[in-house]
Amino acid sequence: MDEQKVLSIKGLLDDTPEEYLSHKEKYENSIRKSVLFYKTLHSTEDENMSVDEKTKLNFRNIVTSAIFKDNSPFMLHNSMFIPTIMGQGTDEQREYWMKRAKNMEIIGTYAQTELGHGTFIRGLETQATYDPDTEEFVLHSPVLSSYKWWPGGLAHTANYCIVMARLYIKGKSHGIHPFMVQIRDEETHMPLPGIKLGEIGAKLGFNTVNNGFLGFENHRISRDRMLMKNAQVLKDGTFVAGSNSKLTYGTMVYVRVLIVSNMANMLAKAVTIALRYSAIRRQSQPKPDEPEPQILDYVTQQHKLFIAIASSHAFYMNAMWLWEIYYSVSLQLASGKLDNLPELHALACCLKPLSTIDATAMIEKCRLACGGHGYMLSANLAQTYGLATAAYTYEGENTVLLLQAARSLVKAWVGHVKGRPLKGTMAYLAGDSTVKAWDGSIDGIIQSFKVVAIRKISSVVKILQDYEKSGLSPEDAWNKASVFLTAASEAHGRAVLLSVYKSEMDKRAAVLSPPLRKVLLQLVDLYVTYWALEKVGDMLLYASITDKDVDELQRRYIELLAAIRPNAVGLVDAFDFRDEILNSTLGAYDGRAYERLMEEAMKSPLNAEPVNQTFHKYLKPFMRGKL
Amino acid sequence: MDEQKVLSIKGLLDDTPEEYLSHKEKYENSIRKSVLFYKTLHSTEDENMSVDEKTKLNFRNIVTSAIFKDNSPFMLHNSMFIPTIMGQGTDEQREYWMKRAKNMEIIGTYAQTELGHGTFIRGLETQATYDPDTEEFVLHSPVLSSYKWWPGGLAHTANYCIVMARLYIKGKSHGIHPFMVQIRDEETHMPLPGIKLGEIGAKLGFNTVNNGFLGFENHRISRDRMLMKNAQVLKDGTFVAGSNSKLTYGTMVYVRVLIVSNMANMLAKAVTIALRYSAIRRQSQPKPDEPEPQILDYVTQQHKLFIAIASSHAFYMNAMWLWEIYYSVSLQLASGKLDNLPELHALACCLKPLSTIDATAMIEKCRLACGGHGYMLSANLAQTYGLATAAYTYEGENTVLLLQAARSLVKAWVGHVKGRPLKGTMAYLAGDSTVKAWDGSIDGIIQSFKVVAIRKISSVVKILQDYEKSGLSPEDAWNKASVFLTAASEAHGRAVLLSVYKSEMDKRAAVLSPPLRKVLLQLVDLYVTYWALEKVGDMLLYASITDKDVDELQRRYIELLAAIRPNAVGLVDAFDFRDEILNSTLGAYDGRAYERLMEEAMKSPLNAEPVNQTFHKYLKPFMRGKL
Repeated sequence: MDEQKVLSIKGLLDDTPEEYLSHKEKYENSIRKSVLFYKTLHSTEDENMSVDEKTKLNFRNIVTSAIFKDNSPFMLHNSMFIPTIMGQGTDEQREYWMKRAKNMEIIGTYAQTELGHGTFIRGLETQATYDPDTEEFVLHSPVLSSYKWWPGGLAHTANYCIVMARLYIKGKSHGIHPFMVQIRDEETHMPLPGIKLGEIGAKLGFNTVNNGFLGFENHRISRDRMLMKNAQVLKDGTFVAGSNSKLTYGTMVYVRVLIVSNMANMLAKAVTIALRYSAIRRQSQPKPDEPEPQILDYVTQQHKLFIAIASSHAFYMNAMWLWEIYYSVSLQLASGKLDNLPELHALACCLKPLSTIDATAMIEKCRLACGGHGYMLSANLAQTYGLATAAYTYEGENTVLLLQAARSLVKAWVGHVKGRPLKGTMAYLAGDSTVKAWDGSIDGIIQSFKVVAIRKISSVVKILQDYEKSGLSPEDAWNKASVFLTAASEAHGRAVLLSVYKSEMDKRAAVLSPPLRKVLLQLVDLYVTYWALEKVGDMLLYASITDKDVDELQRRYIELLAAIRPNAVGLVDAFDFRDEILNSTLGAYDGRAYERLMEEAMKSPLNAEPVNQTFHKYLKPFMRGKL
Repeated sequence: MDEQKVLSIKGLLDDTPEEYLSHKEKYENSIRKSVLFYKTLHSTEDENMSVDEKTKLNFRNIVTSAIFKDNSPFMLHNSMFIPTIMGQGTDEQREYWMKRAKNMEIIGTYAQTELGHGTFIRGLETQATYDPDTEEFVLHSPVLSSYKWWPGGLAHTANYCIVMARLYIKGKSHGIHPFMVQIRDEETHMPLPGIKLGEIGAKLGFNTVNNGFLGFENHRISRDRMLMKNAQVLKDGTFVAGSNSKLTYGTMVYVRVLIVSNMANMLAKAVTIALRYSAIRRQSQPKPDEPEPQILDYVTQQHKLFIAIASSHAFYMNAMWLWEIYYSVSLQLASGKLDNLPELHALACCLKPLSTIDATAMIEKCRLACGGHGYMLSANLAQTYGLATAAYTYEGENTVLLLQAARSLVKAWVGHVKGRPLKGTMAYLAGDSTVKAWDGSIDGIIQSFKVVAIRKISSVVKILQDYEKSGLSPEDAWNKASVFLTAASEAHGRAVLLSVYKSEMDKRAAVLSPPLRKVLLQLVDLYVTYWALEKVGDMLLYASITDKDVDELQRRYIELLAAIRPNAVGLVDAFDFRDEILNSTLGAYDGRAYERLMEEAMKSPLNAEPVNQTFHKYLKPFMRGKL
């Protein structure tokens, strides 16, 4: 488990850059590298049985980003296929399938999303109809929109797939369940009869991942292929419902926490690149007799970049804190206690959207802060954005999640008004709904954000009631208020992000040297001040702030930029990315950006010959008027 | 000049989609198509000599976007090479070069930006040293950062290039001037001696454009290759300075106006795609017994999309209005009158950044509003974003332009305080600096935006003075205030965008049928209300608006969304894009999104064979543990 060791394997990093290959070559190259990489991983991880799963996963993610600039077609085998067998299979099923899956005797993927339905799982149309005569399920795709669409590795890589399908027994629907389906022959790799497989085509990112589609034409699988840890279908077709379906929330929360921490990581990468480039790029000449300044000395540039450093810290602190809550709630779940799940679920439904919205916007700002060179793929900023922005949609579309969170918040508020207690991260909602006197302190600002959340939640409850009173159904009232509902969820999320970042950093900073503590707390100060100014309308509406207070905040913000400037390069160096991982002409540690831009350009296959064949074939006849 | 005629030429649209080709194949394919396309254009345009240049350009842009999904390596030949010969060449030079360039006997490009310098033109490092003994200029690239970098067609297409270089005569620098340089042999297309040429590599967009780099090793060209309409170098090395350098502002303004109108067009394209898809996509089931609604019926979706329709209208109206001002100022320039140029320049320096910032953000929002399918390249939203976002940087980086505009605004304000009159689009700055009573009307809100601009400009002048009083040099004070300076420029730009959209639409709407007028004015209302809410902090700080007024604005905004909903599809249909131009699986007129997604997927070369060769070569041995 040594980055250096893995990255130096011949054939993993020393090939033609991804962006010059055709779509087909990208796939073929990623299979070659995946096999090489996973072979190494398996042997290395065996040596490290003691390392916990989280560290393993982090290591994989980090090294993968260097090797693929993207991801591997095997990705879902580890992140979804194996965990679903573990979570949804009976003991017998786990024993049988895990042995084959762990050694990668078979390669699997996980198919849930369909052409016609994503986040709304109840809408899935793939059918699994039980036939008690043969004791088989008949898998069928009744319409084009029921085709599975998106799963990584599904197109030409995997030979097994867990398929989420709607179970029918004797004409009656029993909800969505997981089925283990062999999709390709193990010997020839040909798709099995009744199985329609293919690739979904080129995308903004993940082009090495081999995303596929899958349809069924009355394809039969034996009864034991339904994963039956929860619900079961007996031989005669009797349906036995599973225990509490809320248990599956656990996994969803886990993945969303993972996304918050991924966003911290991707944003750290982007700002490292942009900030290092800003330290070597020189431009303009404000003072006639002085050299051109580093662009990092322009306050507008500091304004674009320093908040990205602070945000990466904020997301990381929040993700770590959320992990802890997740673990303790998981333990409670295992012993049957579900009380804290809704609050955790609501929190993950706020923080996943906010972290992806902020991180993608800031990654893009980092790219734009590099001017024209940020547009070069060799800078690796556009690709980082492409991968990050996918998280806006996957694992629950952001707007849908914010509305789910709003449902919990509205419910909690209505309960609170009726006298029911508010728990955990929602407890603050029972506090003061006004700011007595704005003092401009960090704690005071955070308190104001809590007040904003209280006011927005209580006000949207009022709006919902008004709409209903005016004759709308509860569903139509909900829809009509939905812009305010997402705003209420955002306000809750912002209050949490700010207060957790502050309290977690305070805890950690207490044991650090005073100079280091000072810099880290300046970033907290910057983050809180930045958001107070971004949300100055909310501060004015709900936090009794005056014009003068706003001026004061603005001036403080500018002073903070100046205070952080001397440590800016050190702060991104401290993220400690290897050059192979940053994979960027602009962001390498040695600062040789122009030299690297030229070196990378020379790798373009077009530069292998001084005259391209199209000159003789097209250009010359055209210029001579002979075409 | 018939879209249908050009688009139906065999070989232009019926090839493998761009995204499946390798980088080299993309170039080779784009040369094949460019030659086919320009041959047709030349013959068609000859038939249409009466059509004005603007219409020709629009037609080219529109058809080009269908053919290349991107652009052609010949792009700069027409948009920069020819105009520079026309604008900077002497009569003799124009006569000689235009004949060759117009027939495309030679293919040219324009090289200004270098690895080390972009927007800051004075920083360019390429040298042109005059040698009076041989009457030649010696072109030289003294350092790597002086290499030309970016010009379209430069890498392997063009054989001539206009090079901007710093002129040295007898050791003295005389500023930046244009030189006509042959870069490749006309017969063999080999780079000439002393000329280093190549491709800069893959980018976020424009990958069919063949962007190149160019360096010189003491390459000599004859004296008559300097374009000498303005400055001249006589045989003996005497330098004759040109007339007012402000004349070149004209072209810069022209290009920036063009960008505002391009942004209107690109945004219209993106919202057409996203809105049509939202009308066929159905999701979730708020009411148990009713079918899943079109996602366009969700208010959150309307909130994402309708503002994009209105913004496209606003940019178009502003661009058309700016064209008129540009033409009248051009006429004044021709007769030596420069008075109105600074104001026009400042305006273009605000509207180019604001239109690119808004349009790119909204195009991206359109993509995200399509959920996962927006991530497919076949939707053509990611590519539209890639092309649009380039305008954030080219033709003057946005932050730099906003600061240039701020310089004009600050100067105008300081003059105003001293009693000098404010002219044209800045005249409003002399008006009331407070809103007497907020009435929530459209005109009242626009008036408030003008007050915000007045207050932000006057306040930043005060900040600059304070910083200088505290001991900072004017340059350091400027830098320290730069975040507020860009905000002041934005405020000016917003006031103009809003008021011009309103007044121009009022003018046009007057002659329309009442139902059509109503819908178009609803969009103006939506746009103004949306921005009042986006800038609610400014409204609260400067426009004496109350909590209740904010509530009222919010409710009105929601009502406007509901009012526009029935006409939303009609509004994007009215943009009147042909399917070939939209080029999108999600946005076609017939609404067959799922069918088209599958049809496009089947064009992936990976789907030509059921089993990829890598199964036998890598996967099977790996799964059997034999690799």
